[in-house]
Amino acid sequence: MLRGIPSTMGDTHPLNMTTLLRHAADVYPTTEIVHRRIDGAWDRTDYAAMFRRVSRLAHALDSLGIEPGATVGVLDWNHLRHLELYFGVPAVAAVMLQLNLRLAPADLVYVVEHSKAQWIFVDESLLPVAEELADKVDVAGWVVMTDKPSSEVTTSLPNVRFYEDLLAEQPEEYDFQFIEETSAAYAGYTTGTTGRPKGVYYSHRSMYLHTMGLIAALKIDYLDCVMPVTPMFHAVSWGFPQAAVGAAAKIVLPGRFTADDIGSVAEAIVDEGVTVANGAPSLFAPILEYIRTLPQAPDLSGTRLVSGSTEPPLSLMKGFHDLTGANVIHGYGASETSPLVTYNWRIKPELAELSDDEKWDLKRSQGLPIVGAELAVLDPAGGVLPRDGKSVGEIIIRGPWVTTSYHDLADNDERFHDGWWRSGDVGVIMPSGYIKLTDRLKDVIKSGGEWISSIDMENAIMGHPKVLEAAVIGVPDPKFQERPVAYVVPRSGEEVTKDDVYEVLRERFAKWQLPDQVIIVEELPRTSVGKLDKKLLRANWSE
Amino acid sequence: MLRGIPSTMGDTHPLNMTTLLRHAADVYPTTEIVHRRIDGAWDRTDYAAMFRRVSRLAHALDSLGIEPGATVGVLDWNHLRHLELYFGVPAVAAVMLQLNLRLAPADLVYVVEHSKAQWIFVDESLLPVAEELADKVDVAGWVVMTDKPSSEVTTSLPNVRFYEDLLAEQPEEYDFQFIEETSAAYAGYTTGTTGRPKGVYYSHRSMYLHTMGLIAALKIDYLDCVMPVTPMFHAVSWGFPQAAVGAAAKIVLPGRFTADDIGSVAEAIVDEGVTVANGAPSLFAPILEYIRTLPQAPDLSGTRLVSGSTEPPLSLMKGFHDLTGANVIHGYGASETSPLVTYNWRIKPELAELSDDEKWDLKRSQGLPIVGAELAVLDPAGGVLPRDGKSVGEIIIRGPWVTTSYHDLADNDERFHDGWWRSGDVGVIMPSGYIKLTDRLKDVIKSGGEWISSIDMENAIMGHPKVLEAAVIGVPDPKFQERPVAYVVPRSGEEVTKDDVYEVLRERFAKWQLPDQVIIVEELPRTSVGKLDKKLLRANWSE
Repeated sequence: MLRGIPSTMGDTHPLNMTTLLRHAADVYPTTEIVHRRIDGAWDRTDYAAMFRRVSRLAHALDSLGIEPGATVGVLDWNHLRHLELYFGVPAVAAVMLQLNLRLAPADLVYVVEHSKAQWIFVDESLLPVAEELADKVDVAGWVVMTDKPSSEVTTSLPNVRFYEDLLAEQPEEYDFQFIEETSAAYAGYTTGTTGRPKGVYYSHRSMYLHTMGLIAALKIDYLDCVMPVTPMFHAVSWGFPQAAVGAAAKIVLPGRFTADDIGSVAEAIVDEGVTVANGAPSLFAPILEYIRTLPQAPDLSGTRLVSGSTEPPLSLMKGFHDLTGANVIHGYGASETSPLVTYNWRIKPELAELSDDEKWDLKRSQGLPIVGAELAVLDPAGGVLPRDGKSVGEIIIRGPWVTTSYHDLADNDERFHDGWWRSGDVGVIMPSGYIKLTDRLKDVIKSGGEWISSIDMENAIMGHPKVLEAAVIGVPDPKFQERPVAYVVPRSGEEVTKDDVYEVLRERFAKWQLPDQVIIVEELPRTSVGKLDKKLLRANWSE
Repeated sequence: MLRGIPSTMGDTHPLNMTTLLRHAADVYPTTEIVHRRIDGAWDRTDYAAMFRRVSRLAHALDSLGIEPGATVGVLDWNHLRHLELYFGVPAVAAVMLQLNLRLAPADLVYVVEHSKAQWIFVDESLLPVAEELADKVDVAGWVVMTDKPSSEVTTSLPNVRFYEDLLAEQPEEYDFQFIEETSAAYAGYTTGTTGRPKGVYYSHRSMYLHTMGLIAALKIDYLDCVMPVTPMFHAVSWGFPQAAVGAAAKIVLPGRFTADDIGSVAEAIVDEGVTVANGAPSLFAPILEYIRTLPQAPDLSGTRLVSGSTEPPLSLMKGFHDLTGANVIHGYGASETSPLVTYNWRIKPELAELSDDEKWDLKRSQGLPIVGAELAVLDPAGGVLPRDGKSVGEIIIRGPWVTTSYHDLADNDERFHDGWWRSGDVGVIMPSGYIKLTDRLKDVIKSGGEWISSIDMENAIMGHPKVLEAAVIGVPDPKFQERPVAYVVPRSGEEVTKDDVYEVLRERFAKWQLPDQVIIVEELPRTSVGKLDKKLLRANWSE
């Protein structure tokens, strides 16, 4: 690294999460934060009030003996107190540890112990999860978050304090200090395919720069209304809470919800005028289905729905577009990348001459890198491949919000390459700059010396109007090494035959690429974070 | 400053100017850069080609012996080669020194010597300026930038090289290294009211963060077309070249122009579809006048004209709005703040109930802070005043793109306060977060123990349809300490009387505040950077 002469600028002025919140509270004090309580009712506050509560929270953290560098676990849905912890814990130079309540109990125990979490904050609705953990982990104590008087809550947790009681006894002004910007602000553990969860620790700096990248890419400002739909206990809700506060947007927090009561989330999107939200197709699909049931479709033409986790189906993107005008924007990233590194919003003007179908097809891709995040394609020998739309390899990523190690884990070299993080995703970069994933490294079907893209095949099958979902896996084959097998879920009330599936596939795939078997099923297995569990499918097939 | 535990993120991945250019060249290779040549003709290139030329330039800088930390002076208008130097010089960890060609010759000599500039790059059209400097400064050599064959250029400069010849002999790939981000990338010298120019050195980090702030505030992206109208030799053209490249927008560089041939700039705004431009009222006013002469007014409804240097007159803002739909956005800052720290684009939604007149009045203010830049109001005793819209004091500013010292200058404590830069501007912060300057500290008229705002009075006078410009100064008075005197310039072809001026002033000002004299003049004196020269007015009045 080269070094020039010093500048005269405030180069030691640190990038801090607290700066974002103070900006919102100072400049946009009356901007609303709408939030759903534990009982499902909606409530409203504003940035000035939130800043006072975060100030009380900082005092409360001090009173619990939480020092700079300490780790504070949180078990909560997308509630207001969770947002307060997003800012209050980093504000005292402590680390907010996201406890993914969908992890297996043994993994949760591992995460608490590996991270050396000192206190755990738990939402009343999640007391059973906490109580199951309590006798297996060694923490200083538990803080219960509830809307009820604390006397009405019974729990077997040891050394319990109550969030609202702690805050009530504190003053509402706090002398926030600057924090050295490479200090960890958040921690999350990723669920890999093998081994224990691995800790990714986000610094104030990395999250601040990710926030600016998000705000710039999605053009979020004080005229927007942001709803973080993605769980706040997973991948820092993709940094959307921080981006919302950094942009001083109105915020709508949907609290706890399931696919069954998605209606209240959909209603809030319409009623509160949400213009930016994040989620996965598994969440957006039922929201779209709900909107279809409304007597009149809402106008969401300014709304950007950032869809991650997997390529959004064309039916989802077109469905939102045609019905509401909302733009489903595929975003790509991983816990290791904060997560957003690409987005696919408006087609580049130089591609204006593409047909509508080609544009929709391009919208399915992972899109364009956010400035600051660099992506490249690596061949198996470790060379960088050309950006020609043809050279397929593993996507590698680097930048100020990309991890370069895992927390307290010695043996992780295989995930890094010369300062780049290896995503494990296989794809190409087009000459126009668009990233297109074809598969996970482990999901590529290697048949007779050629690769078959399971994602392409799944999308083709899902193009059938009667198909809700599809998964294609590679199964061992003595002659060809691997052969594709397709699992297909029909839409509710529809019937799909194997011939229907072969018919749509023959339009796009060579004969040798067609799946050896098509299996019609009622649903597909999912991992704890809602992704298709192809590992389980493969395991079950080989039984 | 508190310190927590380390993160796992790429916190040593530096914020570099080169990252912005590489992103544009990799992801948006065919996006156009339209630029005016020295002879006034327009030419076109793109980011991929510019990246190749910057790579050649980096080799050329190496070949000249320019090492990390060296300083390279540039004397140029808003030409393509200047943009190349904006990225090429920082890319080798050297400092690009802006030589403000409007400085007095003795000040230019001081700047070159104080900064220890090694080589100076000079546009052919500015050879006379360079030649006057040459025998007074000690530099290694001069690089002449011309569109002609070098054999056709004659100059008395010693040790001359030619830019295009240097580049022609270099390969078009360069192995760009990371640069420690607090290294200085740019330097500019501010022209204060007293003493020598003072050096402000911008780091890669500070300019990168300013760039992200600009992109976020103005929502610039690859669908935009940015024209840096503000000279690139002054205040880094307000960081607009960097923001344009960071956002991978189409760029239009207007080259060299004066108020007399502003027509070609105005035509390019219309013809190339410029959506973002910067400038001062002194530049935008003649552009508007030119557009008024067109047979049909262009539709510039998506265009953001960022106007700095002074409050834009209502007539300018309304004129652009009514005629073209363009939004004149007042931006505030100084060389010491990179410069932009506030902007005034769309009125906050909570203020929707204001009348149209009130909204226009609010649009005249400096607007809202860009996230990351913090502003406060300081009372004379050094206390921070409330954000109540009433407490008047000096505006102080801090943030990662705000200077905390001047280059190699010992005695500058008076300009800093506890980590904040003292702007010398007097104003208030409203409860709604808007910053409103009332005066420069030195321009406040102190009459009989009260303050009279010269800016308010100037704006009131300029509200008269026949008035082009006005300046109000305080002149010594034995009884009241100071009294206001107004200088008024009528619009071309119009006649304005003193009574006309008193009539508009009586609507807004108390009798004791009215100026003692109103003087009708043909034009007002300006400083080298185009600001009203009130110092000269005061000096002339007291003669």
